[in-house]
Amino acid sequence: MIIMVIKYELIAKDEHTGARAGLLHTPHGTFKTPMFMPVGTQATVKTLTPHELKEMGAQIILSNTYHLFLRPGTELIKEAGELHSFMNWDGGILTDSGGFQVFSLGKMRKITEKGVYFRSHLDGSKRFLSPEVAAHAQENLGSDIAMALDECIPYPADYEYSKKSTERTTRWAERFVKAHTRTDRGMFGIIQGGMYKDLRKQSADEICGLPFDGIAIGGLSVGEPLELMYEILEYTTQFIPENKVRYLMGVGTPDCLVEGVARGVDMFDCVYPTRVARNGMAMVKSGRMNMKNKKYEKDFLPLDITCGCYTCKNFTRSYIRHLYKAEEILAFRLVTIHNLYFLLQFMRDMRDSIINGSFVDFMKNFKENYAR
Amino acid sequence: MIIMVIKYELIAKDEHTGARAGLLHTPHGTFKTPMFMPVGTQATVKTLTPHELKEMGAQIILSNTYHLFLRPGTELIKEAGELHSFMNWDGGILTDSGGFQVFSLGKMRKITEKGVYFRSHLDGSKRFLSPEVAAHAQENLGSDIAMALDECIPYPADYEYSKKSTERTTRWAERFVKAHTRTDRGMFGIIQGGMYKDLRKQSADEICGLPFDGIAIGGLSVGEPLELMYEILEYTTQFIPENKVRYLMGVGTPDCLVEGVARGVDMFDCVYPTRVARNGMAMVKSGRMNMKNKKYEKDFLPLDITCGCYTCKNFTRSYIRHLYKAEEILAFRLVTIHNLYFLLQFMRDMRDSIINGSFVDFMKNFKENYAR
Repeated sequence: MIIMVIKYELIAKDEHTGARAGLLHTPHGTFKTPMFMPVGTQATVKTLTPHELKEMGAQIILSNTYHLFLRPGTELIKEAGELHSFMNWDGGILTDSGGFQVFSLGKMRKITEKGVYFRSHLDGSKRFLSPEVAAHAQENLGSDIAMALDECIPYPADYEYSKKSTERTTRWAERFVKAHTRTDRGMFGIIQGGMYKDLRKQSADEICGLPFDGIAIGGLSVGEPLELMYEILEYTTQFIPENKVRYLMGVGTPDCLVEGVARGVDMFDCVYPTRVARNGMAMVKSGRMNMKNKKYEKDFLPLDITCGCYTCKNFTRSYIRHLYKAEEILAFRLVTIHNLYFLLQFMRDMRDSIINGSFVDFMKNFKENYAR
Repeated sequence: MIIMVIKYELIAKDEHTGARAGLLHTPHGTFKTPMFMPVGTQATVKTLTPHELKEMGAQIILSNTYHLFLRPGTELIKEAGELHSFMNWDGGILTDSGGFQVFSLGKMRKITEKGVYFRSHLDGSKRFLSPEVAAHAQENLGSDIAMALDECIPYPADYEYSKKSTERTTRWAERFVKAHTRTDRGMFGIIQGGMYKDLRKQSADEICGLPFDGIAIGGLSVGEPLELMYEILEYTTQFIPENKVRYLMGVGTPDCLVEGVARGVDMFDCVYPTRVARNGMAMVKSGRMNMKNKKYEKDFLPLDITCGCYTCKNFTRSYIRHLYKAEEILAFRLVTIHNLYFLLQFMRDMRDSIINGSFVDFMKNFKENYAR
């Protein structure tokens, strides 16, 4: 008997789209979906404390196995009492497999059936990642949800390569399932298939046939046109059983979140809100504001007058612009807080609209105001 | 009639040293002395929010007129509702005159009787600072305590230069007093005199003869041996009336704080605790810990097991070391919080010891444990 430690509970479905609202039960609490997961690459969501994340309503955060594997090492984190204890975060944690970062190393990695040989970007040392290593590393981290090792197929990629890679991802998923031994922690599989529908169907069928707690759609938002991404996403989600939570990896701009939810996605992650904050961009309903812009010099309004975040309750655009111009760390902090709060609130509002039957209006209203 | 908006109230005197405990009444509250003032150069104590400063018990913070004069400009800050409002800090604010930074510009400045001509370090533009400009700029900022424009004499300096400079500082102090028009804000004068006792006495007599709310001892901790600094400090404070609060500028290592308090000083400021935090140094009773050191890799204790700060209550040395190695901003935040809390608590403990008659024991115990 397989015990499922991660359970998805469907609460409401939208009548007109694929959107759905639910609850995700995990070892570290029950969380509301659809949800956005802030990214804490190196065991910290950049610039923030775990208490700030809690205060803004973050539920599950994502951390990167590749980075923690290299530094400080997953054995050390295990010794510290696992990742929750190491970084003092008692909410949910999802870890990726490390595959995406390793595949991004280009010439510094070599893919074999057994796994990927690569060199650390930190010190050039030789390393190896396989389904077994990824499972073991994530069990050391103790994340609530571990991700299977897959290959994220680049865009564009020809059919033959995509088919070969997708089939290897399935074999790696099977090995990952065998290597995942902790019954107190969950695991998600990842559907690949590139931009080819038959491969997406094949991958979905194979991955959904394995005993995963949830299913991710990988290999999207990798450079393809938005419309193609939405088309492949919509095509793929139909093959995922309704009782499985669905996670669209690496997606996090407001427009993609809305379109993803409309196609039945429950979970998202992206560095977008935290990264653009460090570049001076504040996210608002109309898109984003470049806070280094001269026009905010004497603007004594908050970033968003309707926003309930710490930053908007306490500081003005003028002050925030000054902090950016003066290159003060507080600028990064304040806008990171705002951007994450903005996205988390955006998801809460979207969820409410699904439950009360107004998701189509929510989408329409969003699209009228938003410019990418 | 001169209304004093800053009042010093003596609470207790140590029997064996010059140490004293008091209260400082200001337009933004009553604060306990001796006190350490965290430095918020550019309208932010680096890496921190005003709420974090409040939580750790900060009372008065220091902000730098030179920096704010250049960016974003003191007129803008006045328009924002003055500095308290601009940075959302409702505690006390002391601003320096800008003189120290301008004199540090070396070849980029020229001193005349009228004032100092200098070039901005930001854009090379020609600027001018005088007692009148310094008074006006600080009135724009609305700081509780404005500092008179003085010249901080470098070390070493010959007698003739020191005398000429000290006498000009007095003339500038007289002009500053005339230019200071706000009756709702206080002002401090600064004693100079270099390392020459007769000049220190002359300067003290002249500055204390003007209607300042408090008296600063300037021109110390500028490269002279510690013993000489203590000697000149002790010599100088005897000429300051007991009812005036005394401020030793730019001093903030624990050993200098103890020695300063023992010589009757009530107020201190220094970038030391915040700057060393960004370099990886955590302050503790024995001195400081370099958190990048390998020996903390698997050290799961807090920075200081006896410390009550946010950082020590929530994070381990191992995690903090990881954050430094990974160059995460949270490292700077956590150790800045700890270092400032450490110094503020150090001052609170010192004050308690003065009040309960155990200051000499406090000093002895401190010296036995501390290595500079």
